[in-house]
Amino acid sequence: MIKKLIDEIQKKNAPIVVGLDPTLAMLPSHLSPKEGLSGEAFLDAAGEAIYEFNKAIVDTTCDLIPAVKPQIAMYEQFGIPGLIAFKKTVDYCHSKGLLVIGDVKRGDIGSTSTAYATAHLGTVDASGQTVAPFDEDFATVNPYLGTDGIKPFVDVCKANDKGIFVLVKTSNPSSGEFQDQTLESTGRPLYEYVGEMVEKWGSDTMEGDYTNVGAVVGATYPEMGKRLREVMPHTYILVPGYGAQGGTGADLKHFFNKDGLGAIVNSSRGIIAAYKNDKYKDRFSEENFADASRAAVEDMLQDIRDNAL
Amino acid sequence: MIKKLIDEIQKKNAPIVVGLDPTLAMLPSHLSPKEGLSGEAFLDAAGEAIYEFNKAIVDTTCDLIPAVKPQIAMYEQFGIPGLIAFKKTVDYCHSKGLLVIGDVKRGDIGSTSTAYATAHLGTVDASGQTVAPFDEDFATVNPYLGTDGIKPFVDVCKANDKGIFVLVKTSNPSSGEFQDQTLESTGRPLYEYVGEMVEKWGSDTMEGDYTNVGAVVGATYPEMGKRLREVMPHTYILVPGYGAQGGTGADLKHFFNKDGLGAIVNSSRGIIAAYKNDKYKDRFSEENFADASRAAVEDMLQDIRDNAL
Repeated sequence: MIKKLIDEIQKKNAPIVVGLDPTLAMLPSHLSPKEGLSGEAFLDAAGEAIYEFNKAIVDTTCDLIPAVKPQIAMYEQFGIPGLIAFKKTVDYCHSKGLLVIGDVKRGDIGSTSTAYATAHLGTVDASGQTVAPFDEDFATVNPYLGTDGIKPFVDVCKANDKGIFVLVKTSNPSSGEFQDQTLESTGRPLYEYVGEMVEKWGSDTMEGDYTNVGAVVGATYPEMGKRLREVMPHTYILVPGYGAQGGTGADLKHFFNKDGLGAIVNSSRGIIAAYKNDKYKDRFSEENFADASRAAVEDMLQDIRDNAL
Repeated sequence: MIKKLIDEIQKKNAPIVVGLDPTLAMLPSHLSPKEGLSGEAFLDAAGEAIYEFNKAIVDTTCDLIPAVKPQIAMYEQFGIPGLIAFKKTVDYCHSKGLLVIGDVKRGDIGSTSTAYATAHLGTVDASGQTVAPFDEDFATVNPYLGTDGIKPFVDVCKANDKGIFVLVKTSNPSSGEFQDQTLESTGRPLYEYVGEMVEKWGSDTMEGDYTNVGAVVGATYPEMGKRLREVMPHTYILVPGYGAQGGTGADLKHFFNKDGLGAIVNSSRGIIAAYKNDKYKDRFSEENFADASRAAVEDMLQDIRDNAL
């Protein structure tokens, strides 16, 4: 699957991914759930609204980008109707030729990890036919439980030509509390050791120069990104933290390998809520929110092509 | 919420929780999805089957136990119909007076963590009324992202009288890869430092002697459990790994405080698939699978009362 992602990145000259993480507060008023709904009816309306919002943004940006990254928490908070919207979003993105990185940050052990991997990347056997429950192309995975938690995902990836991105160094301010702790055994930080393990977990999933086991490393920590790029030469890095969280194109330079590959940069709010941003709100009305998202994608691409590659 | 859990544990003299982690292979043949179904129809039938299986086990065990712990991965693998079965299971358990620990192992940052917390422990505002998306009483949470990932859960717990259990030392064989690493800053293992943080995160959520921020510590590591009991005096410990994973009643002694409280022990397969176990299969037919589960609960309680308390 990593080869498919690289092909799409090269075809569109766009090492970026749009984070489809909608909130109700982001919706333009004409898409907001109508007032007065309560209970399940409200959740149904919320799910439908965020799906329509996503669809419009996908329509205006799909020729520019290789992939999207829906953050499942934003859907899960609306219960079953929210998860229906998540699944419909995955299917709609596929119909537009986009790859889908499910930002699900799942992680458990043994048969439970297999179940999560099946849910998001695998298939269930149904009377000799198969059915894919959520059907993303990649999923993000949490490493805290060690190899027992990752191996089942890798097995499902091999069987179904899929990939994962393992959390290594996250973009948030407190990510260092545990991830930056220096280990007595190595004299280096935990995130580096996790990075070494990611490179190892992926070693028998190579497609060309990269493996199907990627890493998540925040744009907000460029020096650590530089070091992790060295530690994980065959690992694709999914980079959150660009834009709204403070990362810039120049911060991203060392996340890429010399081949111009090796990293894919996510922006969520900065793209999908662009019409609310000072930079775009004079040029685009609320009704044209999706055109503002397209302009924000173009600006992000320019920044990355000029300053990171 | 921890006070409610303790009240139920004391009322039933049962510091245990039944893990509702059904697989299709566990189902007795009269509950299995009928043959020949494919696609969505199969997923619907699978969801309905595991819900009926859960219901029967809840009916025969609810007078003996304070709580259940459904593992959401086992439902998520059947897509939307599986998650409908999860939600129906939560509601059914509540109707039988049981508390529900959602074993969801979620964890993200900021507004995303808030969204997960809302999904599982909180409510969504719907035209001035509230609606609870999944409505568990407790959820398990992964600490790898640090305070940014936990704080939003704690806030939702405070607002809605709910609780969490944070992964500290998990029960699986490879849990030591990262969790046991000695930190240069403290000279002690990472799991101990996470334990200290759990005690701190919970400090302003006390109800009586315990906080609403609990910890997950595997029965398979009794010495580490003993140490963590000292490090986290006000933290309730959810203990997986009993039974099928190898933990015994005697291993659990030091997970409890002197007040006989402080720990709640989970068994999943050992209870819900008891009718397939050599110990019970001669006494219970497949049709009476739920009675075998009741017998397994009684045996587990005896073991814990005799050897751990």
